Amino acid sequence: MGSLNSENSNGFHAGEHGDAGGKTAGKVITCKAAVLWGPGEAFKIEEIEVEPPQRLEVRLRILFTSICHTDLSAWKGENKLQQIFPRVLGHEAAGVVESVGEGVEDLRPGDRVVPVFTGECGCCEMCQSDKTNICSGFAVDPLRSVMRADGRVRFFCVGPDEERRPVYHFLNTSTFAEYTVIDSACVVKVPAEAPLSRMCLLSCGVSTGVGAAWNTANVEKGSKVAIFGLGAVGLAVAEGARLKGAAHIIGIDINPSKYVKGREMGIRDFINPKELTKPLHEVIRELTKGGVDYSFECSGNVEVLREAYLSTHTGWGLTVVLSVDPSCSQLPVFNMELFQRKIVAAVFGGFKPKSQLPGLINKCIAGEVKINLDGFISHEMPFSEINQAFQLLSEGKALRCLLKL
Amino acid sequence: MGSLNSENSNGFHAGEHGDAGGKTAGKVITCKAAVLWGPGEAFKIEEIEVEPPQRLEVRLRILFTSICHTDLSAWKGENKLQQIFPRVLGHEAAGVVESVGEGVEDLRPGDRVVPVFTGECGCCEMCQSDKTNICSGFAVDPLRSVMRADGRVRFFCVGPDEERRPVYHFLNTSTFAEYTVIDSACVVKVPAEAPLSRMCLLSCGVSTGVGAAWNTANVEKGSKVAIFGLGAVGLAVAEGARLKGAAHIIGIDINPSKYVKGREMGIRDFINPKELTKPLHEVIRELTKGGVDYSFECSGNVEVLREAYLSTHTGWGLTVVLSVDPSCSQLPVFNMELFQRKIVAAVFGGFKPKSQLPGLINKCIAGEVKINLDGFISHEMPFSEINQAFQLLSEGKALRCLLKL
Ligand SMILES: NC(=O)c1ccc[n+]([C@@H]2O[C@H](COP(=O)([O-])OP(=O)(O)OC[C@H]3O[C@@H](n4cnc5c(N)ncnc54)[C@H](O)[C@@H]3O)[C@@H](O)[C@H]2O)c1
Ligand SMILES: NC(=O)c1ccc[n+]([C@@H]2O[C@H](COP(=O)([O-])OP(=O)(O)OC[C@H]3O[C@@H](n4cnc5c(N)ncnc54)[C@H](O)[C@@H]3O)[C@@H](O)[C@H]2O)c1
Ligand SMILES: [Zn+2]
Ligand SMILES: [Zn+2]
Ligand SMILES: [Zn+2]
Ligand SMILES: [Zn+2]
Repeated sequence: MGSLNSENSNGFHAGEHGDAGGKTAGKVITCKAAVLWGPGEAFKIEEIEVEPPQRLEVRLRILFTSICHTDLSAWKGENKLQQIFPRVLGHEAAGVVESVGEGVEDLRPGDRVVPVFTGECGCCEMCQSDKTNICSGFAVDPLRSVMRADGRVRFFCVGPDEERRPVYHFLNTSTFAEYTVIDSACVVKVPAEAPLSRMCLLSCGVSTGVGAAWNTANVEKGSKVAIFGLGAVGLAVAEGARLKGAAHIIGIDINPSKYVKGREMGIRDFINPKELTKPLHEVIRELTKGGVDYSFECSGNVEVLREAYLSTHTGWGLTVVLSVDPSCSQLPVFNMELFQRKIVAAVFGGFKPKSQLPGLINKCIAGEVKINLDGFISHEMPFSEINQAFQLLSEGKALRCLLKL
Repeated sequence: MGSLNSENSNGFHAGEHGDAGGKTAGKVITCKAAVLWGPGEAFKIEEIEVEPPQRLEVRLRILFTSICHTDLSAWKGENKLQQIFPRVLGHEAAGVVESVGEGVEDLRPGDRVVPVFTGECGCCEMCQSDKTNICSGFAVDPLRSVMRADGRVRFFCVGPDEERRPVYHFLNTSTFAEYTVIDSACVVKVPAEAPLSRMCLLSCGVSTGVGAAWNTANVEKGSKVAIFGLGAVGLAVAEGARLKGAAHIIGIDINPSKYVKGREMGIRDFINPKELTKPLHEVIRELTKGGVDYSFECSGNVEVLREAYLSTHTGWGLTVVLSVDPSCSQLPVFNMELFQRKIVAAVFGGFKPKSQLPGLINKCIAGEVKINLDGFISHEMPFSEINQAFQLLSEGKALRCLLKL
């Protein structure tokens, strides 16, 4: 994979960061983090204390983190139930293991890793089933804000009132910090030669999209596909569908600036719902003579979800929901419609993070799977410019902003 | 299959009925039908005129018909959109071909057949896909009340006002009549030795339930299953699940008289939601240590559907909706819940009627598949007692009332 090998800026080696030698192991680390004190406020780069990892936890030195729409929603506080502050957001990242807690056997200081927001313990009933990638112990839970081991946090910070206070965790990961503590079930080792800046993308958005096309929909050669919302997740679906030989990929976005990247990623037709005079699903059904085989909802809008549902072919149509719905809506599908078309949702593209993500990564490195990872990075900037990165994503100007810590 | 072979009362042979010899072919037949003149009214046994079959249609002599809940809903007029009268209801039946219209090649006068409410033309894109049993031309459509060939009816009747008027069709079949006209795509030939009284059950309810377990859920050996609503459809799911080796089948019904038959059909535990002090899904999740693998909704109640959904195991749980929702509700599932569990619906148990039902029938006859067909028949009565049969089903006192014409 040319683009991966030509990447130099991220040629970190174990030990370069995080004192993998052990100087910091077992001690509190003081480092920088982007702390969010309230919904929609600017992140403040604060000094935080990061406690050592407890049993079955890992402390990571984060080297790259990027911003996914799920961070954007949490920043805005779109889901009222999730509002707990101060908090360290961030979940799409890559880094190096600084130290490991008791009982961690598959990871060592210096290992290059990606955190994944949904874990895999490997031994629960669900991890042992091949019908789900959800783990009974470490599944993503947007409401969780403390560590599982003891119900406490590992981050502390002195607030504006000079009080030392707990800082809450986010999505099993909290990667907007130089150091973070994560359950080892949510940490995936990557090969030494893998460029961490690109692995960062595989820790959420790209794997989610590619996996939805491969694992959840199982797109076949010749399929017709419609993708609603052309952010990194939607474009990764396009990559996944293209690699499986989809014959016709349609991209839908209200922001026409997304079409440029979309075209590179194999999307043939673009539809801007704002320019239509009839319902979107009718346009798609006409364009494809009966509807697409697979539709993917990646915009996070419940009305768009209904259009995605109705745009598939009667009988065999399958809609895959990838987006997170901040409005907590009921599925916009009537009981009787379910006899006509299928709808499913997928977390992390259906990949079991620890046992299946390495396979995808190895194929990317070997060039067997040609995902255009570089294409997903629209901006690179230092971690200190995180607020600008949020602004760019929020305004639809960024695909993935890669922040270097 | 002992029960099938021991059946004598229905040993009709081609030619015994319907003048298969050709005396009536091409002519209008005057015969008896149970005509419904308004929602919830008593059926009136009227003389009706039945026109000859048009191109690709078949005229059948109905010999047995039974009553499915879908007839009950139509009788009550539960779905306001479906109200068109006078109408001949009925769709679960068996009979003999009286004559065929132009272009019908797979059926001949005298053939023993079952009508199926959802058709299979065999040549459309959907019939040729193995991902759906819905045909683009002849799919069940509860709103359709006229024949496809010409948008007209084949039934006429003189009303109370002495006017000759059209009588509308129902569910592609209209079997509450001595003779009916059906698209050949909705008529399935059965072997000469098959007892038509039992084949009647396979034309809707039993195939729907068994197929949901086999084709839609693909219940595996050792599975845990919960069935909501223990009418014929729900009990047929139990038969299907039992035959696939399900380890634990739970039956849920508000009518405890259903448990007797349920036990015969392999259901181990029964739950009466009316006797519970906590939510039904919690009870099931406790009983099964985490939830069932498959739940089947066969009661037609949207609140029950939500319980069925929540009663499956996180991750791999699958809910199959079989029931028809007369309230036209939105799926009682929140967007975010779809990441935890799957839900699908199936028409006619996922069987392609013309190409796959004969396989099931042959296996039943050969005794390879031991479905207790006799067990589904709770009452046998002459066609003239159809109003009593509706009363029995409506009061929860009948499973299937077999009406002999
Ligand atoms: N299922 C998972 O495991 C998983 C993982 C990662 C992200 N997500 C979710 O996937 C979604 C997409 O994430 P992303 O990072 O690509 O987001 P993004 O903000 O980069 O992209 C969203 C795109 O949707 C478009 N859009 C918004 N409203 C639209 C509308 N009405 N019609 C058409 N297009 C519209 C936007 O213009 C934008 O291009 C988010 O909801 C995110 O939370 C889910
Ligand atoms: N999908 C298909 O192709 C297909 C085919 C045939 C029938 N159906 C539908 O399947 C459903 C069942 O048909 P049937 O003929 O077996 O009906 P039925 O009336 O014989 O059985 C329904 C059962 O549900 C029970 N029930 C009602 N409310 C309940 C509640 N709140 N909780 C628990 N149980 C409850 C009743 O007591 C009864 O035993 C109907 O909705 C029918 O329209 C669908
Ligand atoms: Zn993400
Ligand atoms: Zn697990
Ligand atoms: Zn029926
Ligand atoms: Zn067809």
